[in-house]
Amino acid sequence: MKQPEYLRAVQGFARRELTGNDAHLDSLAEAPLPLYERFAGTGLANWWLPKEHGGLGLGLEESVRITSELAYHDAGVAFTLFIPILTTSMVTWYGSEELKERHLGRLVAENGFAATLGSEHAAGSELARMTTTARVEGDTVVLDGQKAFSTNTGFAQFLVVIARSQEDPSGYLAVLVPRDTPGVTVDKRWDVIGLRSSATYQVSLSGVRVPAANVLRGNGLRLLEVGLNASRILIATTALGVARRIRDVCMDYGKTKSVKGAPLTANAVFASRLGQFEMQIEVMTNQCLAAARAYDAIAARPDAGEEFLRTGTLKQALTTKMFCGQTGWQIASTASEMFGGLGYTHESVIGKLARDMRYVSIVEGGDDVLRDLVFTRYVVPVSKRS
Amino acid sequence: MKQPEYLRAVQGFARRELTGNDAHLDSLAEAPLPLYERFAGTGLANWWLPKEHGGLGLGLEESVRITSELAYHDAGVAFTLFIPILTTSMVTWYGSEELKERHLGRLVAENGFAATLGSEHAAGSELARMTTTARVEGDTVVLDGQKAFSTNTGFAQFLVVIARSQEDPSGYLAVLVPRDTPGVTVDKRWDVIGLRSSATYQVSLSGVRVPAANVLRGNGLRLLEVGLNASRILIATTALGVARRIRDVCMDYGKTKSVKGAPLTANAVFASRLGQFEMQIEVMTNQCLAAARAYDAIAARPDAGEEFLRTGTLKQALTTKMFCGQTGWQIASTASEMFGGLGYTHESVIGKLARDMRYVSIVEGGDDVLRDLVFTRYVVPVSKRS
Amino acid sequence: MKQPEYLRAVQGFARRELTGNDAHLDSLAEAPLPLYERFAGTGLANWWLPKEHGGLGLGLEESVRITSELAYHDAGVAFTLFIPILTTSMVTWYGSEELKERHLGRLVAENGFAATLGSEHAAGSELARMTTTARVEGDTVVLDGQKAFSTNTGFAQFLVVIARSQEDPSGYLAVLVPRDTPGVTVDKRWDVIGLRSSATYQVSLSGVRVPAANVLRGNGLRLLEVGLNASRILIATTALGVARRIRDVCMDYGKTKSVKGAPLTANAVFASRLGQFEMQIEVMTNQCLAAARAYDAIAARPDAGEEFLRTGTLKQALTTKMFCGQTGWQIASTASEMFGGLGYTHESVIGKLARDMRYVSIVEGGDDVLRDLVFTRYVVPVSKRS
Amino acid sequence: MKQPEYLRAVQGFARRELTGNDAHLDSLAEAPLPLYERFAGTGLANWWLPKEHGGLGLGLEESVRITSELAYHDAGVAFTLFIPILTTSMVTWYGSEELKERHLGRLVAENGFAATLGSEHAAGSELARMTTTARVEGDTVVLDGQKAFSTNTGFAQFLVVIARSQEDPSGYLAVLVPRDTPGVTVDKRWDVIGLRSSATYQVSLSGVRVPAANVLRGNGLRLLEVGLNASRILIATTALGVARRIRDVCMDYGKTKSVKGAPLTANAVFASRLGQFEMQIEVMTNQCLAAARAYDAIAARPDAGEEFLRTGTLKQALTTKMFCGQTGWQIASTASEMFGGLGYTHESVIGKLARDMRYVSIVEGGDDVLRDLVFTRYVVPVSKRS
Repeated sequence: MKQPEYLRAVQGFARRELTGNDAHLDSLAEAPLPLYERFAGTGLANWWLPKEHGGLGLGLEESVRITSELAYHDAGVAFTLFIPILTTSMVTWYGSEELKERHLGRLVAENGFAATLGSEHAAGSELARMTTTARVEGDTVVLDGQKAFSTNTGFAQFLVVIARSQEDPSGYLAVLVPRDTPGVTVDKRWDVIGLRSSATYQVSLSGVRVPAANVLRGNGLRLLEVGLNASRILIATTALGVARRIRDVCMDYGKTKSVKGAPLTANAVFASRLGQFEMQIEVMTNQCLAAARAYDAIAARPDAGEEFLRTGTLKQALTTKMFCGQTGWQIASTASEMFGGLGYTHESVIGKLARDMRYVSIVEGGDDVLRDLVFTRYVVPVSKRS
Repeated sequence: MKQPEYLRAVQGFARRELTGNDAHLDSLAEAPLPLYERFAGTGLANWWLPKEHGGLGLGLEESVRITSELAYHDAGVAFTLFIPILTTSMVTWYGSEELKERHLGRLVAENGFAATLGSEHAAGSELARMTTTARVEGDTVVLDGQKAFSTNTGFAQFLVVIARSQEDPSGYLAVLVPRDTPGVTVDKRWDVIGLRSSATYQVSLSGVRVPAANVLRGNGLRLLEVGLNASRILIATTALGVARRIRDVCMDYGKTKSVKGAPLTANAVFASRLGQFEMQIEVMTNQCLAAARAYDAIAARPDAGEEFLRTGTLKQALTTKMFCGQTGWQIASTASEMFGGLGYTHESVIGKLARDMRYVSIVEGGDDVLRDLVFTRYVVPVSKRS
Repeated sequence: MKQPEYLRAVQGFARRELTGNDAHLDSLAEAPLPLYERFAGTGLANWWLPKEHGGLGLGLEESVRITSELAYHDAGVAFTLFIPILTTSMVTWYGSEELKERHLGRLVAENGFAATLGSEHAAGSELARMTTTARVEGDTVVLDGQKAFSTNTGFAQFLVVIARSQEDPSGYLAVLVPRDTPGVTVDKRWDVIGLRSSATYQVSLSGVRVPAANVLRGNGLRLLEVGLNASRILIATTALGVARRIRDVCMDYGKTKSVKGAPLTANAVFASRLGQFEMQIEVMTNQCLAAARAYDAIAARPDAGEEFLRTGTLKQALTTKMFCGQTGWQIASTASEMFGGLGYTHESVIGKLARDMRYVSIVEGGDDVLRDLVFTRYVVPVSKRS
Repeated sequence: MKQPEYLRAVQGFARRELTGNDAHLDSLAEAPLPLYERFAGTGLANWWLPKEHGGLGLGLEESVRITSELAYHDAGVAFTLFIPILTTSMVTWYGSEELKERHLGRLVAENGFAATLGSEHAAGSELARMTTTARVEGDTVVLDGQKAFSTNTGFAQFLVVIARSQEDPSGYLAVLVPRDTPGVTVDKRWDVIGLRSSATYQVSLSGVRVPAANVLRGNGLRLLEVGLNASRILIATTALGVARRIRDVCMDYGKTKSVKGAPLTANAVFASRLGQFEMQIEVMTNQCLAAARAYDAIAARPDAGEEFLRTGTLKQALTTKMFCGQTGWQIASTASEMFGGLGYTHESVIGKLARDMRYVSIVEGGDDVLRDLVFTRYVVPVSKRS
């Protein structure tokens, strides 16, 4: 099947910038890596941004294909490049026209990054317990608090901060904040165990003032749920990309390694494992694509923003992240035993691939949180069951 | 979402004939059950048969929806009703016009059954080692041998027998044999551990003579591979139907059962299990549908028969059966512990559901066989990898 | 290593009465099976009863060896023969001398059975919620209620009933009741899915009157906990016996079945499975023996009864049942796919073995209950951790 | 239960040198770490060396207790300290009296290290394919080759090298080589992914000459099998130690982390996980101890060396390493998801613990190799089955 042009562009980029660079990509080098600028050279930076703001307007199905390809080569690169979709999709559906024009337009023009500030240390996955506050002073909103994990904030153009309303403790706001607004401070970059070509920060907000017009329309927690739909599906997709890479790394090893006088690829146990991997990869692929199509179907509606608000967290986004995280980890676990002693050293890439894989089941909601959400929203109401 | 009419017909049938009849359906009652005749009353018997022969011409995607619904109520009923597709699809693509006109036409007219005679005791999944022979005598073909497992043969209108060519031991034939041909003897019906509303037989062929025109076009083993594409996807789908039933049976139990003074449904471990089930059900659904669409895409081509011959066993058919069999068994295993002591008696349906589920990973190729096929055909050739 | 004489007696019995009788043992034939009388002929009936009452006084370590051997041939026979230990151990440690003399002495003399009536429908594993009551009238105790699952009650000599004190709703009694006491009625025998050579009953107690001296010393729920220590370890041991049988059945099959022109036993995937089974069997063996030795060490103390009361449920009893139930089920699940189509019929014993195995994780506390107990009693208190 | 003195010495050492030093221990700091010298200060260095050579003569059961305690704090420290047992046990049983007197005596006197050079790159786990050669020249043996993975070689007093006999290609020798013998070169230290407080090297042997009297008695491969019995059991034990640590780290986290307004320790899913961990830890403990006792029983025989030669690889050594490696990895996998985003950074110790755990299933034979050995040696011969 002929590849679409955008995929060939991604593959070219990967070949030039990623292949053979595993050790560097795994080194937690200074962020952002120069190669992110070179990715912009493909014309694909923020590939999902709407055409009306100058973007390419690619859908989530295309995003799945792009992400799988990038993550095949490096999951951290994939994550860095797609995670702004969490931020921009909130702005796209719930920001004023002026806000979109200015900030999405500039993102397109400058191939920049955007970041979301949601999670907090004490709140963990229970975002409703967050302590960052937003208070309205005339036509200004003032933000105060600390956010635990925020990817790309260090070099983003703008942020969307989720905060509790000081006026109404049960209300939450999503507020667009230009990155250079006074009071926004990066406390530190996290020394993560995988995805080490990406950069995630702890960020403090101290008397950060922005116009009230920067507040997105709707309950901030609900907006975050909506934003997470796209990013969770793409996080799941990184598991697919890494799994495909693991399979190929195993096959390359199997051809050179000899067991009982024959190549390992002729061994029935090896064949059985690889047959199982391929099955799992096939199912992950179909699941990521099905979820993306479900998302794109809503996104194509004229009332997409309202429909997403009604739906909140998509069942497919939850199940896809759960499934790919679990399945990807099974593959990584099995494979991490398949390279003998060398596989326990940094001379093999398998250790990096396993560490990269691990994040899928951790970020944007662990499986316990997601299972609970699926149960509450999609099993208890009989009509929502599959 | 509004259900299509054929699905509502299936649901009506299930409500009338299946709901509440688990014990009877599990009893290995005399075959065929009278309810199969009543299913014909819905007009849906052999729903996939081509319109040119008077059938409804529903695709495999619709077949997945029908099968999931039937299997929700009883997997044996589902299996009995869809398994003729294995036989008829070989006839549809590789039978002469006259053969199709007569036999498929009669099947439509009389809402009858068809059966395939492939597997043998010694050969197991290695069909190439079969010992049933076909020898040509003038314009007649003579069949001799014994076939181990053949569903519906006891009451089928016609059979397709896979046999080794006596003239060319490396050649195999697929031969259409009217059920009442002299020399076709049912040795016994198997006392199966699940799917006990269906009937599978051991059959002997002794000097069975049919016209040479009854031989289907092409290598018999390859034809069987092609036929198995549809049936493997639908066997996988029964796992989906049974899994959905298990989920609902668990929820019904959870509402009435009390733990630590609250309903079981309020327990975090229970919620976690059901959330996981729902995730797995969602993925099984997407996988079955994706496989069916891949099948339907080939079936819609003008050269469908040739394309299927070129492809042989579809990757999606193999992976879907593997995945749904494994996942369904995980669900059945987990659930079979969730009903306390009652769940270890026949007063609970969970034992039947687990036994029914078990067949998915066994019939039409165990997972070891399928993993090996996936490896050989879809991992070793780099271009076939996902 | 030379087998002790009691083990050779068990093996002789098994060879004479059990080998080759799988179908009959799986038939839910009228209870008790005549073979139980013939087991008494070995002199081993109730092998654990104390020497001071005429018993053999074998310890739990020997019981593990006997149970593994019996369960290798039939888990239901093993269960029927060892489960009276639950009842008699409560009487041994907490009954008056007179009570023991009369009832344990008669049990020895007549090779009879004893049964415990603990679980109730609504209470499930939360025994504290039981509704069966015991009220004291002068020097008589009157029992009323219904008990859900009680093995051997139909033909036992005496029962121990756990009941809530009517005088003190937070108090529980364990009361010895001769089986022929008026008011004890067997409602029905359960149609169990496995262990079908054993007999488990639902029993009603209606104005059942026994002397107050029949009340065992101590809190009834705590006494039941103590009694369950021995039976849980032996239930776990049945998983070991069945697993050993499954391994041998697989090996027998593997020698006769051919794959790619060689016996299945020469296949690397088959070897890998059997190597894994053997590892698991070895670990189960060590775990059952370690638990039995921990139990025997307490039982050998002069203050055994008091020490058991202090300890309540032994950590080793909980973990052994959990571990063997889970591991046994893994083995049964894997093996149930290894026999091709024949394995899905009653002509193969694997279906029976899997159904028999299933009970280990269900009776006397499901894993959820046991995990919670282990957590509360042996993880939360730091000093109790391993 | 009162701890024996040697355990209290170990605990004191761990408290002083290891607690709170995870980051340093994980840093691949220059080897050997100074703390190894301080361990010698406890008097426990090489605690298993025979009393006749001045050692403490502790058995493998005591070694299990020491290793579990050390590995609780750091698996790399445990590994460094116990792995000389592989080398010294070969010398103890198969070295001449003079060899033992000199080399074991000096080891005791100087608290030194010994190392084994077995595995090679191309040979992997198939040691029989090794290419390192030993040729006899008069009363000298000359060794040539390269060894892939050898722990402690960099700072050991002496090595035992396994080599193919140049005179008899089907013969193998085990040769004691003082570390400072000319021709022994450390090529590099491996950059391992876990156990980073230990040091494993690639080593070249070029014309290394030692007296023929340094050749140990018996086939070198068989001697290596014998030596691996002790080390495999202790490698398995490190999984136990790390698992215990993970449990405690989880409990510490669970007490401080809040979910739905209660501490995580009050959550049923958390409790269920920790209950399962504790069960698994209990079983691992019993298995390690059972294996150690089986080993000690042979070691206590007057003909221990001959009996070990007859037995070769002990079943218990194989099964214990398989079981603890698999179970430990399950625990590490589950736990690695339980710490939220922080668990994906180096600020949590869980990442280190998971990487440390991984080695158990890799070094000294992966599970595929071990399963095959168990099958061939302990399942195929009926009398060897459990």
